This record gives sequence, structure tokens and C-alpha cells, in this order.
Amino acid sequence: MLPPHVVLGTAYYPEYLPRSVGDRTAVDLDLMVAAGITVIRVGESVWSTWEPRDGVFDLEWIRPVLDGGAERGIGVILGTPTYAVPPWLQRAHPEIAAERRTGVPVPWGIRQEIDHGQPAFRFHAERVVRRIVERYRDHPAVIGYQVDNEPGVLLAHNAAAFEDFVAGLRREYGDVETLNEAWGLTYWSHRLSDWSELWRPDGNSTPAYDLAWRRFQAWRTTEFIGWQAELVRSLRREGQFVTTCLAYDRPAVADVPLTASLDVAASNIYVDVQDGLARPSLPSRLAPGWIGRSVADVFLAADRGYGSRGEPFLVTETNATSIGGSHQNKPPYAGQLRQLAWAFVSRGARMVEYWHWHSIHHGAETFWGGILGHGLEPGRIYREVAAIGAELAAAGSSVAGLTPDVDVAVLWSSDSDWAMQFQPPLATGGHPDKASYRTIVEAFYGGIVDAGLRPGVVPVERLEAALTAPVVVAAGLYAASDPVLERLVAYAQDGGHLIVGPRTGYADELARPRAEVAPGPLRKAAGLSYQEFENLDDAFAVEGLAGHATRWAETLLVDDADVLATYPHPGGERRPIVTTKRCGRGRITYVGTVPDASLAAGLFGESRLWAPSVTAMSAVNAAGERIWFVHNWSGTAVTVEPAVLGRVELGPWDVRVLKEGR
Amino acid sequence: MLPPHVVLGTAYYPEYLPRSVGDRTAVDLDLMVAAGITVIRVGESVWSTWEPRDGVFDLEWIRPVLDGGAERGIGVILGTPTYAVPPWLQRAHPEIAAERRTGVPVPWGIRQEIDHGQPAFRFHAERVVRRIVERYRDHPAVIGYQVDNEPGVLLAHNAAAFEDFVAGLRREYGDVETLNEAWGLTYWSHRLSDWSELWRPDGNSTPAYDLAWRRFQAWRTTEFIGWQAELVRSLRREGQFVTTCLAYDRPAVADVPLTASLDVAASNIYVDVQDGLARPSLPSRLAPGWIGRSVADVFLAADRGYGSRGEPFLVTETNATSIGGSHQNKPPYAGQLRQLAWAFVSRGARMVEYWHWHSIHHGAETFWGGILGHGLEPGRIYREVAAIGAELAAAGSSVAGLTPDVDVAVLWSSDSDWAMQFQPPLATGGHPDKASYRTIVEAFYGGIVDAGLRPGVVPVERLEAALTAPVVVAAGLYAASDPVLERLVAYAQDGGHLIVGPRTGYADELARPRAEVAPGPLRKAAGLSYQEFENLDDAFAVEGLAGHATRWAETLLVDDADVLATYPHPGGERRPIVTTKRCGRGRITYVGTVPDASLAAGLFGESRLWAPSVTAMSAVNAAGERIWFVHNWSGTAVTVEPAVLGRVELGPWDVRVLKEGR
Amino acid sequence: MLPPHVVLGTAYYPEYLPRSVGDRTAVDLDLMVAAGITVIRVGESVWSTWEPRDGVFDLEWIRPVLDGGAERGIGVILGTPTYAVPPWLQRAHPEIAAERRTGVPVPWGIRQEIDHGQPAFRFHAERVVRRIVERYRDHPAVIGYQVDNEPGVLLAHNAAAFEDFVAGLRREYGDVETLNEAWGLTYWSHRLSDWSELWRPDGNSTPAYDLAWRRFQAWRTTEFIGWQAELVRSLRREGQFVTTCLAYDRPAVADVPLTASLDVAASNIYVDVQDGLARPSLPSRLAPGWIGRSVADVFLAADRGYGSRGEPFLVTETNATSIGGSHQNKPPYAGQLRQLAWAFVSRGARMVEYWHWHSIHHGAETFWGGILGHGLEPGRIYREVAAIGAELAAAGSSVAGLTPDVDVAVLWSSDSDWAMQFQPPLATGGHPDKASYRTIVEAFYGGIVDAGLRPGVVPVERLEAALTAPVVVAAGLYAASDPVLERLVAYAQDGGHLIVGPRTGYADELARPRAEVAPGPLRKAAGLSYQEFENLDDAFAVEGLAGHATRWAETLLVDDADVLATYPHPGGERRPIVTTKRCGRGRITYVGTVPDASLAAGLFGESRLWAPSVTAMSAVNAAGERIWFVHNWSGTAVTVEPAVLGRVELGPWDVRVLKEGR
Repeated sequence: MLPPHVVLGTAYYPEYLPRSVGDRTAVDLDLMVAAGITVIRVGESVWSTWEPRDGVFDLEWIRPVLDGGAERGIGVILGTPTYAVPPWLQRAHPEIAAERRTGVPVPWGIRQEIDHGQPAFRFHAERVVRRIVERYRDHPAVIGYQVDNEPGVLLAHNAAAFEDFVAGLRREYGDVETLNEAWGLTYWSHRLSDWSELWRPDGNSTPAYDLAWRRFQAWRTTEFIGWQAELVRSLRREGQFVTTCLAYDRPAVADVPLTASLDVAASNIYVDVQDGLARPSLPSRLAPGWIGRSVADVFLAADRGYGSRGEPFLVTETNATSIGGSHQNKPPYAGQLRQLAWAFVSRGARMVEYWHWHSIHHGAETFWGGILGHGLEPGRIYREVAAIGAELAAAGSSVAGLTPDVDVAVLWSSDSDWAMQFQPPLATGGHPDKASYRTIVEAFYGGIVDAGLRPGVVPVERLEAALTAPVVVAAGLYAASDPVLERLVAYAQDGGHLIVGPRTGYADELARPRAEVAPGPLRKAAGLSYQEFENLDDAFAVEGLAGHATRWAETLLVDDADVLATYPHPGGERRPIVTTKRCGRGRITYVGTVPDASLAAGLFGESRLWAPSVTAMSAVNAAGERIWFVHNWSGTAVTVEPAVLGRVELGPWDVRVLKEGR
Repeated sequence: MLPPHVVLGTAYYPEYLPRSVGDRTAVDLDLMVAAGITVIRVGESVWSTWEPRDGVFDLEWIRPVLDGGAERGIGVILGTPTYAVPPWLQRAHPEIAAERRTGVPVPWGIRQEIDHGQPAFRFHAERVVRRIVERYRDHPAVIGYQVDNEPGVLLAHNAAAFEDFVAGLRREYGDVETLNEAWGLTYWSHRLSDWSELWRPDGNSTPAYDLAWRRFQAWRTTEFIGWQAELVRSLRREGQFVTTCLAYDRPAVADVPLTASLDVAASNIYVDVQDGLARPSLPSRLAPGWIGRSVADVFLAADRGYGSRGEPFLVTETNATSIGGSHQNKPPYAGQLRQLAWAFVSRGARMVEYWHWHSIHHGAETFWGGILGHGLEPGRIYREVAAIGAELAAAGSSVAGLTPDVDVAVLWSSDSDWAMQFQPPLATGGHPDKASYRTIVEAFYGGIVDAGLRPGVVPVERLEAALTAPVVVAAGLYAASDPVLERLVAYAQDGGHLIVGPRTGYADELARPRAEVAPGPLRKAAGLSYQEFENLDDAFAVEGLAGHATRWAETLLVDDADVLATYPHPGGERRPIVTTKRCGRGRITYVGTVPDASLAAGLFGESRLWAPSVTAMSAVNAAGERIWFVHNWSGTAVTVEPAVLGRVELGPWDVRVLKEGR
Repeated sequence: MLPPHVVLGTAYYPEYLPRSVGDRTAVDLDLMVAAGITVIRVGESVWSTWEPRDGVFDLEWIRPVLDGGAERGIGVILGTPTYAVPPWLQRAHPEIAAERRTGVPVPWGIRQEIDHGQPAFRFHAERVVRRIVERYRDHPAVIGYQVDNEPGVLLAHNAAAFEDFVAGLRREYGDVETLNEAWGLTYWSHRLSDWSELWRPDGNSTPAYDLAWRRFQAWRTTEFIGWQAELVRSLRREGQFVTTCLAYDRPAVADVPLTASLDVAASNIYVDVQDGLARPSLPSRLAPGWIGRSVADVFLAADRGYGSRGEPFLVTETNATSIGGSHQNKPPYAGQLRQLAWAFVSRGARMVEYWHWHSIHHGAETFWGGILGHGLEPGRIYREVAAIGAELAAAGSSVAGLTPDVDVAVLWSSDSDWAMQFQPPLATGGHPDKASYRTIVEAFYGGIVDAGLRPGVVPVERLEAALTAPVVVAAGLYAASDPVLERLVAYAQDGGHLIVGPRTGYADELARPRAEVAPGPLRKAAGLSYQEFENLDDAFAVEGLAGHATRWAETLLVDDADVLATYPHPGGERRPIVTTKRCGRGRITYVGTVPDASLAAGLFGESRLWAPSVTAMSAVNAAGERIWFVHNWSGTAVTVEPAVLGRVELGPWDVRVLKEGR
């Protein structure tokens, strides 16, 4: 039901404005039309407005916005307001408060403080969703629905959730003896004699328990979103879509099963701008988190959005200007919004929706900037958004619903991420680095971009899709089953180039280190083994390739592989750290460290970068045309002359969108 | 009832000494007399000594001290012991324990763990206060009273306090709809349908709620101190004064209303000494907190003491030597105590009272050093204090009760401080900087001192008093009503020079960003506006003036002001950052950043410093004479020759007190 | 019952292996025999295996291991499993959960979560210990017992523990008035009128209370271990020993009384390897904690093991390879394991037992590496251990049960450590440094090693043993009674050289600063006093000796001592910081600072180091022979030619064991 072009959208909250401002709906919608904004998302945050008292509904307040949209050709994504429950519901049903720790309810006063599995919540959520959808499904402006919002924000330790968890284990393992063996509960006297003896997660120190708990929590989120999506689907008008906006870093999200219950995947992508988008990348002042810290992170986030279902997706939220807290004010440089919009489109985005139309004068997100600021007058940001709108309109269907070209597919494993959050291999400042998985994967992904290649991201659940690429990266794939590892070897034997990064295959699918010499099922095919590994406090320049080994080194004992790079171990001798070996018709390259940018890029061969500040991504449209998106991530103009496109001139913080063979 | 000279005093706790030491009262008081100490504060910490069991009083233990004081001409400030409740009261009435978080009582074992609003506390507090005051009001040594001690240490979340808070909101707003609108509770479904639905402050994320909560907590402290002051006033002998010692940085203090209920304001001023007092200032190793970090902080603290009531004040506590915890040992350099004493006097202090006579051998403050150390023998510190005593005696009434000269008045806004603690604009190490307000105001205040001018501090509640100065600084005045901002513009129109610092006027009196382009009511008069603002990770050298823009920049769009300074924005262009504009008979200078020391000083014109290490303050005494206080904050002697005083020679860490026209 | 040579051992947990691995017992034991491992420790972690349900025992699972050991001449130390309680016991008796804070039970899921004073725990613990010991005491493999494991991990705040604490105070002090005076409870109204009024430790701020609480908690651990030791002793076969493995840094351990109830002291010594063992020492990346950070720390830990009882001891756990968390992977360089083993032996270790045989595939310690890694194949570490086994076997009884030579005895005071944890004199990054005591003592101990001398450590409880050394160091001996200080003066008068470090004698045995000028009872004999002291933010080069004063300086007022070193006080003048004075037939040297490595070494006179990277320790065996242990803590070979041994060649990370007069 989306129009045939890439849609420019914005979240719109006229209900938040101070009453003293008066009714701006017409003004705002007209400004949107002028800027090429053709979709708005509304209503998902204000349950207490939809239903001010228990069972008393006020559904009409939004109608003028929908009518105004319809009049102007603006489509509406109607949100269900279940992520923020009204005070009357909190007070009547205090048991719906989520417990981050057992017995300690999250205090009221923000949002998403609820355990969405609670019956009292489900009862009221279903009722309000039904009312809203039934009232507006036939409104011509409504093109689709967003159920809830950024779900999976916490791990609910509520009693019922825990009992569900135990029930699931009982179904899975049958008896406690089997669980004792599977989880290694002999250790430290943790053997259960009865299911009732399982301890709460608060004090848990058993890795297999933690991984099961994380999977269970992700399943709960999937179940909840699936329940709502099914509810809305049962009510909606034909052709309307159902989605939810995902923050991929939420602790209780598994994107593949979750998005399977939706009509389209949708991702919220926030990025550190200004010099955070410079290439070559500068060291980021941010810790890894929900804010992307580099250009590579921008593409990685977009690729994850595409990867969830292996098809075009929506960007439901992204920077209009400053994002985050009151102390995080960082508006983009001129041109950067346009660069970001086209970067998303280049990896398959069907919509680019800003959060949000105007800055809010109240609440936790007061300083999360809108297209309009608190002053509500159009300014520089509005003008830049309008320019993007014009370009998207001009490009029309030629850039909508693209299939990205992928030179190298990178595997993503939620299980390994969770396992490494519990037992991080990397250290930062002497402490466990809970971002270990991301750090490892991003090092390789960044290398692909730095080598001038086009990356993709494929969740392990969709392994076969990855194996269509000529090169596949399996880095940090710590928790992996025998079949997955064997399939990767078969891929190489069939002619693929498998690049294995550190920790891959060290543990099995329950995150138990294998009782066989590492890298276990990959040992023979990679032609090496290791029994020792260590954290590196310093970076070591390698020989054989450019760049450095950082943070981690496996002590590779090479049987019959070619050593591509060695590093000087401080204990004295040089040690191999990158090797490669023919494997059937293909090849396996093994990397026993976290490569720095230079070493990571070198893994993919001669650099095919057009210029240091330039990225070039391509994708194929429905007409079979290949579209190139050439970015200059720098404040200095640059001209490149790639064979495929000829001369391309790029201004500061510029992007060009070009059809191959133009 | 204070003598007509500036009084040197000390807190005196003979009851703390180990019994093995024997009775030192006569020895101590004789040593005090020899040192020129003529006031002692006693008794405020030992309720369990005054009333060892419920209703059983022992009031005589202090009599020898009072008698000894009277014999020697030492006046006594009698403290009421309500800030430290006895164990028997804690045990009988556990409900008086304060709750920093709802439902979590502060554990016993320190002091000020109580919710002073609890009836059981008030009942017992009133009884013990009555007994003490009735017993000693007629003692000739008693010149005044200190009620409680450094009140406002915490925000009490106890149920009764919260219910009072809600009751106050009900009185103020009438109905929940009005509150919903005022606080913007549509956001995230926070609309109330009934007063009972208001969430506890623990989880609150609504800024207007938080500001109301802070104001309520400050009001509670004012009410408590007012209640005690009124009680003591109803009992005291004619001529005795009532005060309390204020720590201005306590979270639940609003100094203007609180001191309104006292006879005189009294401030505890602690300072980082040694090179912390060097000028030009060195970067401090301390974070902003209760310890002043520079010479400017010394004057600022004194000016706040004067500013609370706009009249001379008492310094009830200040460094004798090391202050703080067991790890914070830092005795002053020779001469620095004398410098500090005269610095306080220069800004209107009527008393300089050391905390405390001797170091204590027990308890949390074991290493907070006294005039005598643990060894109880007079040493260097005693000798330096005695020298101060001699100088104050010699100066007599000529330096008592001074009215400080003020070249530039700096506005202080508790509301803005609280609002910026909840939503800090500045970042430190990537985190919200809760000291944002102080940082902004101190930058401007320090500039005044660095320019060689005489600053003053005036709370916004006493706005008219500020406007008598030729220059007024309104920096960080984030939460400000229309009338306040309009009055500032009128001040400029009437001939004043208004210097506006960053964030001023951005929000209204409920800390809601204004729905008009910034700086709102100042926009037209300042001749500029801004829609964007950003945090600066680095300092940027400005052009037009000396110095740097740091930490914050507003993107000024100049309509018709003169640009005084620009800075190089990393996005490419230079941007205006300091502007000025005629306004009626006066002028408005706008500063869109936190100026570094050099830029801040330059805002006030040509430097009038006599020497880099020298400050010169002046004040007028009752006889109309102008007294100058010239400090050399350095270990190197210096000679200055200002026109107003002629040649002045200063030794290392020296101060000279000189009458103008001598 | 230990064999007459130094024993090589390992903790062995075949029960932890995945069942899929099959029965490896014979394989493992054979590998041990080949490596010279002749002792294993078993069974101490798996109560839930010994007793899978309440009262249902499975005692036979370990028999094959014991039988296998007996067949191969491997002795077994049988562990009692009381440090890890089974889930069925947790569930049936939730009250046994320890409370780190009053009313907040430690959550289940790790180990040592219990209050070992709880009757329900003691009942079940006694039963399982009886069953195990009775079943296997007559097995020929069993040579001894380890009761519990690393006890004293937490301070139990459970109600019964607190009531015991109060009861003990009542016995000690008789009435509350005496306690009020002893603890200084007049301060801040803390005077008790009844025992029931004593506050819980959670909020306590009274230093004397805290010291009493720490002593009480250590006593509880001693009582618990003594109870178990007595129980096992009542059951064991003649000749079997009873011990427990101590982690000396546990918060509730006093090693002297605790080990008094054992047959032999046993210590777990973990060390930072690789460049952490380089000499001269590099700055450590680790904070002070349970991991030794230097070669000096290795010897210090061993000397503490010897010092507990003043006789040879066991090393029950030490690094096989990486130790700690998943992010702390740091295998030793080639040769370092051998160096460590001989270092322990040089200070009297009778056993060197690795933790543990194989890395574990489950649980909190997954990445705490074993002699075999997760792959279970022997590798480099196994080979290095085997080499050590061969050397120990070759050395035989000549290195077993040694009496270390001690040039300088360093006093250790648990009371002073606890007192300084509560009121740290040193600051780190502006915060209290809870490692103050260790930092001070380690500075002096390190100086002894750096001076090429042989140190010893003697707990103050065994003061007379220290005074047999020609030089004694009393540094940081903050909490010390008059008799202890007077005995130290007498030692000097009798010809000893007493080196006094900072803070010594400042407080009495209840950690109350003395009401006399410091250093109190040492003042006259040291010929100096001080009333002031300060933290140093920077290091200051001294004059008179090499090196720097760091972190702390006492302002020494010299009466009649010789000044050995002065430092430039930033306030202007130079100040004495090291002095010395004849005292009877001996000497007292006073050091008013934390000396850096150079200054510390210089306190002991001309350096007797054989080479910068070399340490040389000696000890005397039962035959009266002096054995030298010469280490080269460096990756570069070195040759030394000391008179006592002649030419000694040392390879990289090498150690030579030589008989004097060979």
C-alpha cells in the first residue's frame, strides 16, 4: 500500500503542543506537503488520550489530522499506543509493572515500564487497539499500522514470566537430570533435584542458563508483537500493512522471528553526525550503543534492516537533527541528512521517516530535535528535508524497493551476541566489554566498506541466503551448532571464500565451549588449531599484511595453512595471526584477532576504494537497472572516475545517485 | 547583639574529647582569648547528651562552658540539636527515617537521616529545643541561637511528604486537566484522570514535575527552619539573634525564602587551599561541589551569603585546616587563612567562625582538622588564627557590617539550577553535567574577577536589587518568566548593560522550552535569534575577542546586532558567538557559549587588574568610608600602584586592608 | 603425611566434564603421573553431587578417582563441599542466604551465598561432612582434608549475626556507658541508652564500630573453620592433615587465628604474569586486588602464607594459565610457571597445586584456564608443568619445608588494614583509596626486594617472631596499642633497626587517633613529632636520598633526629621527610611518606642487587643447608657472579636453585 516511490515521512504529534500555540494542523500538513513528506506516523504514544479513563474512549481527537492528511495525499501509519500505559491502568493494576530484578517493580513515570505478558495489560491493550483500528481502518488516509514501539526494552523478571521460562525448559528438557547435564550444573553444586529448585536469574552465573533466559525473553517479545500484529490484521482494511519499529539493540529482540509476523520490517536508525560521519573514520567519542558511530555503522544498520527478512524495509525513525539527552546536542552539517537518506535507500529502504516533526516542549525527549525546533518556525533543517523530498520525488520508482548488491555477506548471530554479553572475551579498561560481539563483527564489516566493497548482513537463521555471496564472513560466531559450522565448510568446498574471525566455533549452540581443540568443526578445513588465546592490551603491527592485531589473539598452531600475517608476541617469538587454505573449490581464511581498519580491509584484497572519503554502493531495481549511490563523506569536494560510472564530481558532504550505463 | 567589630569564632565541642584527656575547658577558653576568638558555637550536635533518654534531660553539662565564656567575654551561639536524633528516638519512631527513594529508609548511623516533617520528630524536637533555650536564654554568655544545622540535605520521599506535594499541586492547579496541560502530560500517556494517579518521583521523567518537586522540597526546608526559628524567637531573651548555618549547595535549599525567617543569614564556606587559591587560577583537581575551587569561588560564596538578604552575614563555618574525608588532607599555606578571613570580610561577613576548635577523635569527621589537631597542642594553625584575631581586633568597627561595592551584579536562579540538574545542557565525558548551571554562572562571575572588577550575586527573587548595578549578568537563566525577562530588557532600555549568557530565556518559569524562537522575549532587544545549538567537545579560539568558546554554542542568527566575536564551526563557516546591540539608553550583549577565562574577562572591557595574582575588592562601612582589600594570591611578593591607593606592597599569600584616601 | 619432597598438585574435577567425553579418569591420572603430579584435591565444590536430595547421599562417584590415585601413588586431599550449597537446601531453608546488606539476601546462583552461622546450614553441613569423611577416611589415597574453600567472602548482615555482635559487645564492654565512651558516641548524638539501640552496620559512620564489626566478622570465619576442622579431626585417620585454602584478601579473614585451628596453613596465590613479572617492575594495569601485580607481590603473598603460622605452608591454588573472567586471558610466557613454582618454594611452600587440571566447559569460571584447555589435549602448559614436576622430584627433600632467611621483617596488621579501608588516608583519583594499607606496606616490602635483600612478613599477632630480624619495618601500623609500640622501641633500644612508615602509631588499638602529638609513643624515641599531614597529588623528588615522596607527607618537626631526606613543599620551604636517630643500641628511621621504588630501596642502604632483573632468595633446609633461588625476571639472559655462589647463568624467564657452598 506504499506508493511506488521511496517515501519521505515523519512522526507527527500535534497533541503534544501547548494549547497556547493553537491548532497548527493545517499549517504543519501544508509545510509537510511543501517538503515532499507524504507519510506521517501518529498516535502510538498517547493511550491516556485515546482512553482517558478506564473504558472511556476519546477516538475523535486524531480525525482532523487524518482528514487533513487525506486531503493532501499524505498517508497515515496509525500507531497502537500500547508501549505507554495510562496512569489509571498503572494504579488499578500495579502488577503489570515490569521487574528488572525479581521483586523490584520498575517505578512509574517514563514508558515501557510494563511486563507485556500480564493479563491485565493484555486485556486493556486489546480493547484499546480494537477501538482505534475499528474506528479508523476505513479512513482513506490510513495506509498501515505500527503495533507498539521499539519493543523488547527490558528483561521482565516477573513471577509469571519466570514460571513460563521454567515451563518451557521442562518441555524442552523433560527432566532435571537432562538439564543438569546440558547446563553443566554439577559445577558449584547447582544440580537440581526438582524443577522448583531453579534459581531466579538475578544471581545466576551459569552461561547456558543465561543464554536460555535471553532466548526466552526474545521469544516473549516476538510473541507479544505477533499477538498484536495478528489482532490488527484481523481488523484492518485490505491492503493496509502491519509493522513495528525495531531498535535492533534492545536486549529482548530477535529480529528474524519477530519480523516474520509483520508485513514489512521497520528499523529505527540513529547516527552520530558531524565528524562522526567523516571518512576515513575518526575514533568515536561514543561508546557502542544505539547510536551508530561511523558511516560503516550506517550501512550496517540498514543492512540489518534488509537482512531481517531479506527484502526492502522501512526506516521508521531517524535523526532530523540532535538526538538523545539534553546534553547531546549535535545538529548535522549541511548535506549530511541528504547523505543519510540516500544511504538508507541504497540498501533497500522503502521509507525514510524522521523522528519527529517538531521538538517537544515537555518530557524526557525535550531535546531530541524535530524538523521544526521548539520555536516551530521552519529553518535550516526543514529546508534540507525539503530538498531530500524533492530528490526522492524526482527519482520516483527507480530507487524504490531495491535489491542491494552484496560482495561480502557478514553473518549475524544473536545467540553469540548474548553469549558474549554474559562472558565477554574482550576487555575495555580492564573490565569485561559487553560490546565484544559487535566490536568483532563491526571490525570485519568496516573492513569490507574500507576495501571499497559492498557488504550485506545476514542473520544466521537465514544462513542459506548468505551463502549466495562470493565471500562470507563468520566472525565472533561463538555459539554455533555443528550443522552451521559444517555448512560453512561445505560452502567453501563448493567454491566460496569463507573468512573466519576470532571465537567462531569455540562453543556449541548452548554456548558451551567444545570439548575438542578449537576451532572444533573448522579445525581440519582451516588447517590449524589453538589451545591458547589472550587479550591484547596494545595493538601489534602485523607482518605480511598491513595493519594491526588488536585486543585479542589466538595462538594459532598451523597444520597446513598458509600464513598471511604474523604478529610479534611480547613473549618473544612471532606468531601467525592470519592464515588461508584452499578448501575444495574454495578457500578458508582464518583471522585470530580483531583486525584494525587497515588489516580488516586488507583481508578482502586490493582496495577498490574510489577515494578515501568516498563510498559507492549499488543495488538493482525492479526494472533490473543497477543504481549507484556515491557518497563523499567529507567537507572537501572530490572527483572520482570509476570505470563503471565515469567521472563523478562530489561536493562537500555530497551524494550522487547514478544509473549504471547512463 | 554581635559586638561592633568583626567577630572571630569557632565551633567548640569539649563534650567530644576522650574522658582520659580530663577537663580542658579552662585551657581551651584561655587559648581562645589569647587568639582573639570571642564567639563560640556549642551544643548543636548532641541531642543524645542533652536528652539521654526519652524525656530525661541533662541540661547542665554545658554550663561550665557558658560560664567560662561569660567570664572571658566570649559570646556563645547556642545550637539546637535537631539535626542528629538520638538512638532512642530512632528506635521508638522508625517512621521518622527519611526515604531518599520511596519505601527505602535511610539507614541509621550518621546524621540528618530524618524526615523533619514527621510529627514524632517535631514533637520531640520542640520539647528539647524548649528545654535548652528556656534553661539558658538568660545566661549572659548567650548572644544568639543556631537552629538545626546545614538543613536540606536530602529530598524526602516519605509518604506524608508526597501527599503534601500532591495536596499543594491540587491547591495550585485546581484540577488534573489544568495540571495535564501545564506539565505536558499528554506526552507518553501521562495524563491523569485523578489526583491519586500521580506517580511517585522515583521514576519520573517529566521536567515540570521535577521542578515542582524540587521547589516543594526547598519549601519544606524553609518551613522547618521557620518553625524552629519562630519557636526559639518565642523563647529567647531580647537582643539574641536566631540563624542557621547554610550549606548553599544542599539539594533542598532555597536561600532567599529560608533566610527570610532568620535574623541574619549565615553561610558555611569551605575552600580548596594551597594552589587551589593561586591566581591566575590553575585547573582544579576537584569536581564542582561543596568545596570552592578557586579564589573566584571564595568571593562567589561570600557574595551569595550577602545576597540572600542583601545585608551583612555570618560565616558560621570555614576551614581551619584540612577539610573533608580521611583522604583529603590539605592544610593551607602560611598566610592563606588570613587571606580567606579578609576575603569574607570584604564582602560583608560580620563573623568568621572556624570549624572547629580541635580535631575529633571519633566519627565521620575524624580528619576534618581543627585549630588544634588531635594532639591538642597549639601549633602553626593556632598561631595563624591568633594573628587574624589580632588584626580584626585592631581594625575594630571600621570593617564590620560593610556594604560591598558592586561593578557587576550576577543573577542567581535556583529554579534554573534545578532545571539544569534534571536536564543538563552541558556534557562532561559524554555524560550529563549536573553542574551545568554553576559552570555557566561561574564562568561569567570568574570573568568579572579576572577583569579586575567587583562582582556581586543577587538571587532572581531580589531582581530589583541587582538592577542598581551598572552591569548585570543573566547567564544560564534557563527557567525564567516573561516578567523577569521583560524587566531585564527594561533595565537595558533605562541605561544598564545587560550581559546575557547561554540558555537564558529558553524556557519559561516551569522550565518548559518556549514555543517561540529563542531567546524568546529577549529576541528583539538582543537583535538575534537561534534555532540550533550544540555541545562543543573541544574549545574553539574566537576572533574579535581573546579567548575561547567552550562546551556549548548557540547558532546565532543575527538580525541587527554587532558581532563582537565569531568562532570557526567545524562544519565549515565561522559563526557569530558574541554580539552586542544598543537598547534604549543601554546595551545588551549576548554570549552564546560558555566563555573560557580569557573570553569571560574580555566581556567586561579593558582589564583593570592591578597584577595577575592580585584581587582588589572594596566596600563601604557605616561611617561611609571605602575600605579596600588587596590580596596577593601567590607565593611571590608583588607591589602594585593603583591610583586609588598608591603603592601597595604585598608579600607571598598576603592581604592588605586599606582605607581609600588614607 | 605429605611426602618428604615438595609436592606438585592440581585440583581435579572429572565430575564437571560433559558426559559425551566419556570416562577420562585413567587418562587424566596417567597424564598427571607423567607430569610428576602426586597430589590432587577433589570434591569440595559438589555438595549437590554428594547429596543430590535432602538426606539422600551418593558417595561412591569419587571412588574411582581415589582408587586410581592410590594405584598410581597420587595422594588425595578430600574437600568438604560446604562452600556451595545444593538448590534443595536453598529452597528448604531460604533463611541461610547471607545478607550483604541488612534484609537483602544474596540471590542464589553462584556460591558462598550463605551465612555459615545459620543452624539449618550447620546441621546439613555437619551431616554431609560426616558422611564423606567416614566413607573415605580409610582410603589409602587420602592424605588430608580441605574444609570449605576460601572462606570469609562477605560480611553477613543477617539478624542472628548482628545479635551475636551486640552480645559480644555487651560481654566486652559491660554497659552502654562504657561503649559510648570507648566509641566516642557523644559525637552526632550516637550515645546509646540501651543495647537494643545499636544501629545496624549499614549506615554506620563510627570508625570504632566498623573495626569491631570487621573483627567480629573475621572471628565468625575463624569459628566456622575451626568448627569444621574440629569435626573432621574427630573423624579422620591418624596422620591425615586438615587445612583450608585461604584467599588472604577476603574481607572476613584474620589469618593468624584462623590458621591456628588447622594443621597447616594453605594459601591461594594468583599472579599477573607476562610483563607483570618483569623486573624492574612496570606500572601495573591492574588495581590492587586478589591478583598479585609484581614479583614483589609473589614473594609477599608467599611470605604471608609462611607468616600465618611461622612455618612451611601449602600453595593450594595458583595459576596454571589464564586466571579470572572471560575477558582476562593472559597465559604465562614460557618459563614463568617454573619461576613461580620455585619462588613459592623459596619462601617455604611445601606444595604447589594448580587450579586446575582442565578448563571447565560450564559456569562462572569457564575461562579460568586449566593445565589442559577445553580441548583436553596436553599442550604447552602441560609440558611446562611436567618440567617443573621433574625438577621438584630431582630436588627431593633438599627444598622441602624450608625456613626462609629474612633480612628485614615487615609487620602486617589486619586491624590497620580494616581501619584504613574505612578511613583511607590515601586518595586515588580524588577518591578514598581503600587499598591504602596495602599500598603503604607494599611500598616498603618492594623496597626490600629492590635493595636485593630478603624480606619476611610477620603478623603483629606474632610480633616477637618479627623482632628476631635485624631490621623491622612498621609502616602504616595505624591501629596499634601502646604495648606494641613500646615493644618496638625496646627492640631498637636492644640493637634492632626499626623503620617506621607513615601513619604508624597515629591511632590506638580501637583506631582512635591518639589525643597526644604524633607519633605518640614513638615520638621521643624517633626524635620528632608532627601535627600536620597532607595528601600529595604529585610525586616530589627528595634530596639526601634518591627517589620520590609520593601520595602522603607528614610535616615532621624534628627535635633531635638526623634528617636523611627532604622534599620541596609546594608552600615554599623544604621539609624533612626521612629521618634517623640512634636509639639505645639500635636505631629508628622515620619515613613520613609513601616512598617510591627508588626511595624505598634506599632506606635499606647500598643496593645488594645482583642484577636489575634478578632476585635472590635463600632459605635453610632441615639438613641445615642454605639453598639459593636465583630468578631472572626478564626475557633477556643474564649472568651474575655473586660472591656467595660464584658465576650463575640465567636464561630468559629463568630460575636457578643452588646450594650455598656447592
